[in-house]
Amino acid sequence: MLSKQSHFPAATMSPPSMAAVFDKHGPIDTVIRLLEIPPVEISEKDVCVKMLAAPINPADINIIEGVYPTRVILPAVGGGEGVGEIYSVGSAVKTLSPGDLVIRSPYIPGSWQTYMVEEESLWHKIHEDTPVEFAATVSVNPVSALRMLNEFVTLTPGDSIVQNGAASIVGQCVIQLARLYGIHSINIIRDNPGSDEVKEKLIELGADKVFTESELNVQHIKLLLGDTPQPILGLNCVGGNSATLVVKFLKRGGTMVTYGGMSKEPVTISTSNFIFKDITLKGFWLQEWKLDKTKYRDWIDSLLRLVRAGKLKYEFDAVHFEEFHTALEKAMGKHGSQRKQILIF
Amino acid sequence: MLSKQSHFPAATMSPPSMAAVFDKHGPIDTVIRLLEIPPVEISEKDVCVKMLAAPINPADINIIEGVYPTRVILPAVGGGEGVGEIYSVGSAVKTLSPGDLVIRSPYIPGSWQTYMVEEESLWHKIHEDTPVEFAATVSVNPVSALRMLNEFVTLTPGDSIVQNGAASIVGQCVIQLARLYGIHSINIIRDNPGSDEVKEKLIELGADKVFTESELNVQHIKLLLGDTPQPILGLNCVGGNSATLVVKFLKRGGTMVTYGGMSKEPVTISTSNFIFKDITLKGFWLQEWKLDKTKYRDWIDSLLRLVRAGKLKYEFDAVHFEEFHTALEKAMGKHGSQRKQILIF
Repeated sequence: MLSKQSHFPAATMSPPSMAAVFDKHGPIDTVIRLLEIPPVEISEKDVCVKMLAAPINPADINIIEGVYPTRVILPAVGGGEGVGEIYSVGSAVKTLSPGDLVIRSPYIPGSWQTYMVEEESLWHKIHEDTPVEFAATVSVNPVSALRMLNEFVTLTPGDSIVQNGAASIVGQCVIQLARLYGIHSINIIRDNPGSDEVKEKLIELGADKVFTESELNVQHIKLLLGDTPQPILGLNCVGGNSATLVVKFLKRGGTMVTYGGMSKEPVTISTSNFIFKDITLKGFWLQEWKLDKTKYRDWIDSLLRLVRAGKLKYEFDAVHFEEFHTALEKAMGKHGSQRKQILIF
Repeated sequence: MLSKQSHFPAATMSPPSMAAVFDKHGPIDTVIRLLEIPPVEISEKDVCVKMLAAPINPADINIIEGVYPTRVILPAVGGGEGVGEIYSVGSAVKTLSPGDLVIRSPYIPGSWQTYMVEEESLWHKIHEDTPVEFAATVSVNPVSALRMLNEFVTLTPGDSIVQNGAASIVGQCVIQLARLYGIHSINIIRDNPGSDEVKEKLIELGADKVFTESELNVQHIKLLLGDTPQPILGLNCVGGNSATLVVKFLKRGGTMVTYGGMSKEPVTISTSNFIFKDITLKGFWLQEWKLDKTKYRDWIDSLLRLVRAGKLKYEFDAVHFEEFHTALEKAMGKHGSQRKQILIF
């Protein structure tokens, strides 16, 4: 019996996991609940990861509500991005060891839980000195900023870009990356009581110009640019009038990339902008860029190097997982505009 | 004196020219008038062309009204495109001879007159068997159709395109060229009393599908396509709801090119069309394509070969130049939708 046991060792099991689970689609606060998932088997190619931090992204909420093109098999654990520490490894695992700091890359659904068991290949080892909150959030917003600055037009030092929603994490990353590339950034923010403070913060991050939407209600928008050249790339995550303002700034032949629609209003563009100003409109969906795992991990590494060097930063709220429902309410905007909510496990 | 005269021959002069002239911008019917221009000198590199036919294009009207980005020096002769016959040539002219059929290419303002004197290089000799009405109109609408089918996406036989304003000359050319390339065309026309007749005509030209806008007021527009694949290229010359219908037909990753805005309504596109459907919007302005004279003339030659072979045709109204003001009213749509007005000199 003993010898047989040594040939067929008892399966290694994960610890039980506390998880945010939904078993049907619907309003997220009614369908999601925290529950303990029993231990699962760690097969030879799997790693068991003790999760450290995972954000609540808008796409996570949309997936649970069933209004996102990406569907999951129910019941499912919520969340997508996340960082953890290797807790144990299967017998055939070669590149990861207990204690390694790892992020899910390309990220897939299921990061809102305390322990995860998945194939080694789904995890990317990162430098142990990386702050977990940035590791947890690098794969979506900062990668989006990086790719949007690189995929659509060829920017050279001295060029300009313009963006709305500039106070978002993507917006803050765009400002800092543009500055590192020698690119001027023109930034549009909402008219909020705290907009002067936001302006100061964005200027501190490296923004060249920051305007509230109402400040752009002028006849000759170009005159506001001073010496800053007209931008050849615009980034739009708002839609409606705010997207129109981005197009107004663009120079002839410029491109506006839409990656969000926070105002829930469509993009409306005059015929003459297409014909005489030769404007191109495109869309960006990170999903499309996840397919090449090697490149994706290179982008993540380059961004986390900037984070560790203090050249890329943004603000967030770190919230203990037990306060999940409070964090969720904030992420849903129920208490007004809030920072990114990062769950700490 | 005689010998001196043979060294310095008297300048050759053109005949007097009857021209449609404007000396200020404004409503076209108030600023343009027919008048006789005195003979002008034909210098050694010039040719004098007896004009045969020239169309009234929307851009011609916009230029005169001062609402077009292209400006002319006033006073000026109206018109742009046109065909004529070489009447006489300067002493240094090598490639053209009296009697040659020529078109202005790239076209520039000033074709609405009976005699024109311009540099040899501005005129392109075409085959003598070309019907003058097609020669007069090939450089704008048919060239636009040709370039829009070739410049934006790579079409291969079996692919589809979708267009609105399909009954226009550009639309008719798109249908016929698509058919010659083995490309399916899906066509959107206005809801007019005569729409059944228009449908029949477009089907006869080679259209795969023709819908009026109201027929597309359905939930699942794709079901209307039957076996025809979803289009990867859309052409929009209307804007508003009609442009939205073009985007609805497009397959994922498709491109819509805007080249006109007949409804005077802007193009409105939802955020999800950009992000999840990966739609690209671009504009087409023929002006941009005129710069390479050699290519431009090759396109014209290839289109006129199709005309002479009976493979490219469209309807128009030929109107004597003396009835200029009547033709102008028709071209401005004052008597409802009308065919292209072609002035015959």
